[in-house]
Amino acid sequence: MSKVEQQLEDLKATITSELPSDISVSDVKYEGPELVVYTRDPKKFARNGDLIRKLASQLRKRITVRPDPDVLSRPDTAREDILDVIPEEAGVTDLDFHADTGEVVIQAEKPGMVIGKHGSTLREITQEVGWTPEVVRTPPIESSTVSNVRNFLKQERDDRRNILEKVGRQIHREEMSDEEWVRVTTLGCCREVGRASFILSTPETRILIDCGDKPGSDDVPYLQVEEALGAGAATIDAVVLTHAHLDHSALIPLLFKYGYDGPIYTTEPTRDLMGLLQLDYLDVAAKEGRVPPYESEMVREALKHTIPLEYGDVTDIAPDVKLTFHNAGHILGSAVTHFHIGDGLYNVAFSGDIHYTDTRLFNGAVNDFPRVETLILESTYGGRNDYQTDQKDSEEKLKKVINETYEKGGKVVIPAFAVGRSQEMMLVIEEAMRNGDIPEMPVHLDGMIWEATAIHTTYPEYLRDDLRDRIFHEDENPFLAPQFNHIDGGEEERQDVADGDQCIILSTSGMVTGGPIMSWLEHVGPDPDSTMVFVGYQAQGTLGRRIQSGWDEIPINGRGGRNKTLNLELDVETVDGFSGHADRAGLMNFVKTMNPRPEKVLCVHGDESSTQDLSSSLYHDFNIRTFAPKNLETFRFK
Amino acid sequence: MSKVEQQLEDLKATITSELPSDISVSDVKYEGPELVVYTRDPKKFARNGDLIRKLASQLRKRITVRPDPDVLSRPDTAREDILDVIPEEAGVTDLDFHADTGEVVIQAEKPGMVIGKHGSTLREITQEVGWTPEVVRTPPIESSTVSNVRNFLKQERDDRRNILEKVGRQIHREEMSDEEWVRVTTLGCCREVGRASFILSTPETRILIDCGDKPGSDDVPYLQVEEALGAGAATIDAVVLTHAHLDHSALIPLLFKYGYDGPIYTTEPTRDLMGLLQLDYLDVAAKEGRVPPYESEMVREALKHTIPLEYGDVTDIAPDVKLTFHNAGHILGSAVTHFHIGDGLYNVAFSGDIHYTDTRLFNGAVNDFPRVETLILESTYGGRNDYQTDQKDSEEKLKKVINETYEKGGKVVIPAFAVGRSQEMMLVIEEAMRNGDIPEMPVHLDGMIWEATAIHTTYPEYLRDDLRDRIFHEDENPFLAPQFNHIDGGEEERQDVADGDQCIILSTSGMVTGGPIMSWLEHVGPDPDSTMVFVGYQAQGTLGRRIQSGWDEIPINGRGGRNKTLNLELDVETVDGFSGHADRAGLMNFVKTMNPRPEKVLCVHGDESSTQDLSSSLYHDFNIRTFAPKNLETFRFK
Repeated sequence: MSKVEQQLEDLKATITSELPSDISVSDVKYEGPELVVYTRDPKKFARNGDLIRKLASQLRKRITVRPDPDVLSRPDTAREDILDVIPEEAGVTDLDFHADTGEVVIQAEKPGMVIGKHGSTLREITQEVGWTPEVVRTPPIESSTVSNVRNFLKQERDDRRNILEKVGRQIHREEMSDEEWVRVTTLGCCREVGRASFILSTPETRILIDCGDKPGSDDVPYLQVEEALGAGAATIDAVVLTHAHLDHSALIPLLFKYGYDGPIYTTEPTRDLMGLLQLDYLDVAAKEGRVPPYESEMVREALKHTIPLEYGDVTDIAPDVKLTFHNAGHILGSAVTHFHIGDGLYNVAFSGDIHYTDTRLFNGAVNDFPRVETLILESTYGGRNDYQTDQKDSEEKLKKVINETYEKGGKVVIPAFAVGRSQEMMLVIEEAMRNGDIPEMPVHLDGMIWEATAIHTTYPEYLRDDLRDRIFHEDENPFLAPQFNHIDGGEEERQDVADGDQCIILSTSGMVTGGPIMSWLEHVGPDPDSTMVFVGYQAQGTLGRRIQSGWDEIPINGRGGRNKTLNLELDVETVDGFSGHADRAGLMNFVKTMNPRPEKVLCVHGDESSTQDLSSSLYHDFNIRTFAPKNLETFRFK
Repeated sequence: MSKVEQQLEDLKATITSELPSDISVSDVKYEGPELVVYTRDPKKFARNGDLIRKLASQLRKRITVRPDPDVLSRPDTAREDILDVIPEEAGVTDLDFHADTGEVVIQAEKPGMVIGKHGSTLREITQEVGWTPEVVRTPPIESSTVSNVRNFLKQERDDRRNILEKVGRQIHREEMSDEEWVRVTTLGCCREVGRASFILSTPETRILIDCGDKPGSDDVPYLQVEEALGAGAATIDAVVLTHAHLDHSALIPLLFKYGYDGPIYTTEPTRDLMGLLQLDYLDVAAKEGRVPPYESEMVREALKHTIPLEYGDVTDIAPDVKLTFHNAGHILGSAVTHFHIGDGLYNVAFSGDIHYTDTRLFNGAVNDFPRVETLILESTYGGRNDYQTDQKDSEEKLKKVINETYEKGGKVVIPAFAVGRSQEMMLVIEEAMRNGDIPEMPVHLDGMIWEATAIHTTYPEYLRDDLRDRIFHEDENPFLAPQFNHIDGGEEERQDVADGDQCIILSTSGMVTGGPIMSWLEHVGPDPDSTMVFVGYQAQGTLGRRIQSGWDEIPINGRGGRNKTLNLELDVETVDGFSGHADRAGLMNFVKTMNPRPEKVLCVHGDESSTQDLSSSLYHDFNIRTFAPKNLETFRFK
């Protein structure tokens, strides 16, 4: 019997002895980080609401109870009983029974009403039918990504359970090493913005955090070096993804091409957004005639291996590592990622990309942890002078630019990341029109913005409190305002818009490195009455950065494949208060208000001068040991 | 045709066109770092003394010319002709003909007389017989190590040529990477003394520098991590060994057990000493009932893969790395190791263990390099107060201790490293007796000291100028003085010595961690009239360190295997001016007198406080960026 088998036997005995004698345990299994308890008495389990919580706290494990398949009622009768229990206003749109695990997935417009207060409705369902209910939200705006992901995972259920069981055994294996150390290796995004990637390693465990591309460059993370994947992708125990932007996620599917077969931990919205952006990444590569580094099959592999976690869940991901995600305020599902290592030995937090203060979309980043000895901190705006305008002033400036352009009869073109900045813009523009601050006019959403917005509305619990409330309780979903038009008619529709009246165009890519914004440049670029407004960070080497700094002759591939030069006549404006990134003050405050403060801070994810400025200021102001690492360095903390 | 084949074809064409038309080139091959040119006209080649030098400088390669086997004269006639050319005083003791390569190995008591002025006699030999002569010294004291090594290499000649050809192809492969970086990873000896080991890596090449054990501990270098051998020992291109002490060399044979099959670069004396010490390492392990990490077969593998280099030879060891050894002044053959990377990109020097000033045995360490951007510097005596007594004063003190002990009728026991400190002691004692500063009495050499001394006399060119001259020209070899007695009669002889009159005993191990010194402790330890004198560094955790700091109850394995406690009654003295290591002043001066000074210094190979003290002083005094790394860190320099 293997050690894990023995562990499970022991757990089964313990659980059986802890439970009332009329509740049987037929099997105990690991599935990823969870311990799944199968019982022939699911209804009795459900009646004792506290049993699971008590077991979980006693065993220090996340526990899921499932009915033994033998005792399940038939799906057709169960369906009726379930619908009887759930209030009609919940808006159930689908019920999906999985007899192999005794789970029923309930898709509803208002998941809260399916759950009930402290889970009371869920327990009632189990008491009635024995099945274990799981609830997902019906997207308020139809999202092909969300439905594709859900369908795919449904179809791959068997495979996925095998993966989860394997991962579960890995996580709960016995620790082998009696050494103690904690190290971080930098594989990218040091003294640069882009290709975020790190290895966190202990004698027992190797975790890859992020694996992104670099906008405006072909550079990828240093995966080939020995301490990355040199000895094979299977030497990695887990991948952790802080958020979906491609400079953090683009190359994750490549890991599976290299033979990785382990879990990806991230939040649920990041899982969906990641799939959307990665497929687009392949699409853009194909359109530009580049050979993409992996095929779409690998995106599906990544999806299949993703284990979504919620903010605040403390999760065992290795025998010596617990992972907890916290809101990072940057984009939907973005996470500050906290690792607790070796039962009290050491704590490392990776900020990922953060916004310190509240924005319209998100609450500000969490910086409150029980302990953090080392913080790996983004430094995008870490430079001495990288102070951003207050968002209120930025919004005023944006409205002024829109009004002036409208007066001239021109159009406003805003290059924006599909995910994050676009939705923030939509909220500003929707409110400004509602308040009469700017004239009503069509707002065209091009590229993946519409789809990304639909994903936002699927996960309102990840949005800022008051925005969530508007979407939940008042049916005032601002994203559904009638001005918003999804450009889904391709070049023809764009031509119509270009020939038409004043309007606002939000289009990807956010750094003008490809995508439909290239087409809008051609349509609107030569019009001196129109304005291009930059609202997000433009990395070095991107066309966006060049236009921002005054370039007005742009070499482009004309239709028919001939190269030509585009003379930009339109106004170029930068409104810089909308960044998804904390500015200099935000970064300093993020560290300042930490309690206790970390002993060490590594300043990464910023130009060379930004990381060095931030590193030196944190050192001087707070007397913390700080570093501005290069790529390919390894720091040992313990 | 492979790229290397093509390269060789091109070289053959170039060489042919550069040579006078009457000299033919029948083949061109790489053997390790050398280019071997086979010719049917070796005599003509030898007549044009400058040809090889010109070719070498034109092709920027080390060139060896060998006769085509077809044109060789018969060994029996060649032998006579050779002996006719060489002056009788050269003392030729052996001639060994290798028809496969056209080489004849001449062993002589005075190799200089076989070589002749600027190699004139060697050229004369080739002109006479066509064979390529190679000269080695007949050891003045018979050394079983030297003769074993020479016999083994003779017997493995075919295998070795295959290895060298393979290595040659590796070295001269085309560079693959267009990245540029230089990194050093610490695998041991950081904030500690012992288990020296580093990886120097570029995108193209990975070099392991040293691989030692840790005296007084079971700790070994972190070979298992991914960036060391995690992806397999074959990911290492070359091993470089700074000197033979076990804390630098003990685990090198283990690499071959792990599948390493590449070259070891070191000096010739280090090669011989390394074999001696490694075999002893296995022996000690066996005696102590430990399972040694490798078998003696692996020591032979290491030997077979060793490519000896001389001080000052600039040698290609990878497409992007040139290696040069320089005298380190620490022990016989010890080297400061200089790496020139990427044709001007970067230069890194590893000090290994150094002695900055001249000692009786060696000239002081070389610190003069064309360029060094980063220095990895030993810090054994790097602490603020680690100033050693001047060697003159130390010698006075030693003589005083010897005289006082003699007066009392006791014996002087000196634990000493077989290699280095023992020979220094021998020189001091021999001179003191000759001058009448101390009474004549037997000096017993136990453990491997005799054998190590024999190796020293085999390589006098590695000794200090005036000592070399004494051995060479005046036949005043101090190591042959009649007081010196080799303990080769085991326990019985020791008992006799213990029961006898006053004497001096030099015995290994130098840190009292095993070896015959343990026996001397038992014999002499309970005698209050005797004295133990420490003359070398005692690492933390060793018995030597404990005795030095006052422990006088020593648990030992008594005869018959029972544990007992030995009460030390003898005096304990420390005479600290004899260390093979630079003291604090020496380390500071080593850096101070470098010109240009390095940009960065990594202080390693010292206790935590020593490395930090030295690091901080170098920073403050010379404004150099300094570090006191931990093990398992990676620094990127470029």
